[in-house]
Amino acid sequence: MAEVGEDATAGEEAQREGADIYNEEGVIRASFLAHIGAAIADRDTVTLKRDVSDLHQSELGDLLEALMPDQRRALVDLMGADFDFSALTEVDEAIRMEIVDAMPNAQIAQAVQELDSDDAVYILEDLDEADQEEILAQLPFTERIRLRRSLDYPEETAGRRMQTEFVAVPPFWTVGQTIDYMREDQNLPENFYQIFVIDPTFKLLGAVDLDRILRTQRAVKIEEVMHETRHAIPATMDQEEAAREFEQYDLLSAAVVDENERLVGVLTIDDVVDVIQQEAEEDLLRMGGVGDEELSDTVRATSRSRTPWLLVNLGTAFLSASVIGLFDATIEQMVALAVLMPIVASMGGNAGTQTMTVTVRALATRDLDIYNAGRIIRREAAVGLINGVVFAILIGLVAGLWFQNPGLGAVIALAMVINMMAAALGGILIPLLLDKFGADPAIASSVFVTMVTDVIGFFSFLGLASLWFGLG
Amino acid sequence: MAEVGEDATAGEEAQREGADIYNEEGVIRASFLAHIGAAIADRDTVTLKRDVSDLHQSELGDLLEALMPDQRRALVDLMGADFDFSALTEVDEAIRMEIVDAMPNAQIAQAVQELDSDDAVYILEDLDEADQEEILAQLPFTERIRLRRSLDYPEETAGRRMQTEFVAVPPFWTVGQTIDYMREDQNLPENFYQIFVIDPTFKLLGAVDLDRILRTQRAVKIEEVMHETRHAIPATMDQEEAAREFEQYDLLSAAVVDENERLVGVLTIDDVVDVIQQEAEEDLLRMGGVGDEELSDTVRATSRSRTPWLLVNLGTAFLSASVIGLFDATIEQMVALAVLMPIVASMGGNAGTQTMTVTVRALATRDLDIYNAGRIIRREAAVGLINGVVFAILIGLVAGLWFQNPGLGAVIALAMVINMMAAALGGILIPLLLDKFGADPAIASSVFVTMVTDVIGFFSFLGLASLWFGLG
Repeated sequence: MAEVGEDATAGEEAQREGADIYNEEGVIRASFLAHIGAAIADRDTVTLKRDVSDLHQSELGDLLEALMPDQRRALVDLMGADFDFSALTEVDEAIRMEIVDAMPNAQIAQAVQELDSDDAVYILEDLDEADQEEILAQLPFTERIRLRRSLDYPEETAGRRMQTEFVAVPPFWTVGQTIDYMREDQNLPENFYQIFVIDPTFKLLGAVDLDRILRTQRAVKIEEVMHETRHAIPATMDQEEAAREFEQYDLLSAAVVDENERLVGVLTIDDVVDVIQQEAEEDLLRMGGVGDEELSDTVRATSRSRTPWLLVNLGTAFLSASVIGLFDATIEQMVALAVLMPIVASMGGNAGTQTMTVTVRALATRDLDIYNAGRIIRREAAVGLINGVVFAILIGLVAGLWFQNPGLGAVIALAMVINMMAAALGGILIPLLLDKFGADPAIASSVFVTMVTDVIGFFSFLGLASLWFGLG
Repeated sequence: MAEVGEDATAGEEAQREGADIYNEEGVIRASFLAHIGAAIADRDTVTLKRDVSDLHQSELGDLLEALMPDQRRALVDLMGADFDFSALTEVDEAIRMEIVDAMPNAQIAQAVQELDSDDAVYILEDLDEADQEEILAQLPFTERIRLRRSLDYPEETAGRRMQTEFVAVPPFWTVGQTIDYMREDQNLPENFYQIFVIDPTFKLLGAVDLDRILRTQRAVKIEEVMHETRHAIPATMDQEEAAREFEQYDLLSAAVVDENERLVGVLTIDDVVDVIQQEAEEDLLRMGGVGDEELSDTVRATSRSRTPWLLVNLGTAFLSASVIGLFDATIEQMVALAVLMPIVASMGGNAGTQTMTVTVRALATRDLDIYNAGRIIRREAAVGLINGVVFAILIGLVAGLWFQNPGLGAVIALAMVINMMAAALGGILIPLLLDKFGADPAIASSVFVTMVTDVIGFFSFLGLASLWFGLG
């Protein structure tokens, strides 16, 4: 019975600490995980319902990610109707699909009805067409219409991310009428931050923040306190652009309208925070030469998704090699050149990456535009020249002393200045050009910048050496 | 008079389009900028007040960034009391300091009083101690106390970012009393999303969302509708950690409490969105070998801030060179090795960067933890082996054909497999180890990973060649 005793302790501990299931590092406590694992193994639904039902959806999501695959499915089964399906919006796509694929469509349909429409769409959109249809067919009419409308908008648009539950009132209502309506209506969304004002055709007229309503006398008409919604979001707007509107205007929620300016949903800041995180993550991964990869991806999916980038790099590596090949006779006569040449290329690559990183980020945040591009290009060129000269002197001295050959020091120093300037200009002009021609600078800049610094680094160093020493 | 005519047109155009001062690419329209520039040159305060006063603070911030330095200062002067100082929270630090430094402290004190406390702190915190004190001394008592309390918390904490204006009521008030209080009190914050419940000593008891108040009958007591604030943020909590709480629990605003659990302020989602952006930006820049750099930095500041990273890279580049130096005799006998060796290093560097990027990001989002580290390490090793073998075959064939030397193809293929495995393991273990020892993996991983792939790439290729061909 020692095991049961231990379980009880872990459970009590979790409760005593106000369900803080994380340790100081923000990782789920091993004791809590063992406790849940044991309850799953024992099929102990009483314990599970007690200790899992109260978790926030994101905590449940973290728990799911920490469990083994068959534990996950067992947990969903054992919890039954007590399982909070919104947790599936908090886990990796691979884990979500693994859980959803194991569920019969009827059960998914049941679960989806409990969710806010945006969460329901998030889960449904990854299913194949046939399953989607089967699930939608089992939903009540209004729910089905709402979800289908969201799903009809393209992926990654505001229409896909919006919540179709909202509060809307006519402009001639008074504040008092509005408050009374909210006190009585049982069908209000779970949370809302503003009330929209619409005409009889659902055309959006404005919005009122809740704090405005609370501060206003009951007799005042809604149209007197509403503000124009300058930032209504078209349903077809890209989610990234919508996120930028939220950021720029510090919005908490925004009306989503169709092509006729009719209110179809509301986009809230919590979804936008996820979009911002996701976009920042995409930029970072792309600059590292990784696509839309997730930690839960399989070996096969990972190795396949990384191959294209490695292939491109292979092409540029052979290009650099062929530049070196031009000087094979030179190298044969002075092997020190082979020893030193990677230094020139590597320093250039590094400096180019620095400039490129700043440029790509500034383009993403729209901080770099036609008004400052000229100034920034001049600044980068100046930085390249200064750092080029500083490091040229340093490297020239070390190389000259190492090989007891002052001429070699002079050659590498000169090559260094050339390559650092090339790095600076490549680092800023390549992303700018890619952006101008509609390519994503985060994806493609890295490979072109290192191509430039490798090719120019090898060519300038070996070429100068061949001239200086009359070799080759 | 043609110029005046043109100005009027641009101004009217800006107004007609609902003050959309941006073009389709999200950049400020050239016509609007020219119009404002001309008005500044003419010292035409009427036009400026008409066309600039209505801008949102972030629009005004973008306008400031697009103007020339002396235009910025002139605009602030000409606008006088109509200038919205909250725009200064939306511009680069260098531009903010440039504007603030040109203002007399009395004028700053005047401006600061108009701002929300969090914006005021944002502007004051960058000033030197003496100026801060002089400005604070000119503020009314309560304002001074509030700002000083925020400024007393360390930089980048919740206490620094919080707003000290909030609505708090006792638990025994009814919903009706609370609404009446809000209707009458003129000193409410400009916007608020929840009401806090406190005891007479300001100890935080709970919170009520505004929609909950609106749905509840007037006679109900606040304590019956309030929810426990499980996510009260200690004022000393790091802003990044606070942002993570907001993200995890989808918070809109959260109470900030001092060490005695007393309510001292409120942190709102719009500040948190900025923190999230900033942290994502920091990670990206650090991985690119750039520090806390801004686009408006000078040449000198930029070149200085990039030097440390280049110095470290210089060290590792000389290390790689010395590895090559071990095999100079080998290279002398077979110069094709010098031509091909950068390919092995470059492919390894690329694969290592891919793995490292995924690892650094997963560590930042806490998706990588002790529960999946083992699995991820095994996955990366497998991906390294598979991609190593695939590219080894490809490179071996090309190299063998290029130099008409099958043995050379075999050697580079073997070196490739070794280096791709090293890249995979280095790419995941180096960030994990740095993280374990408390270093920021985003900063330091890149240099160590490429050091590993360069050294192992050169050593394995040249070493294997020297064995295979019996050279050196």
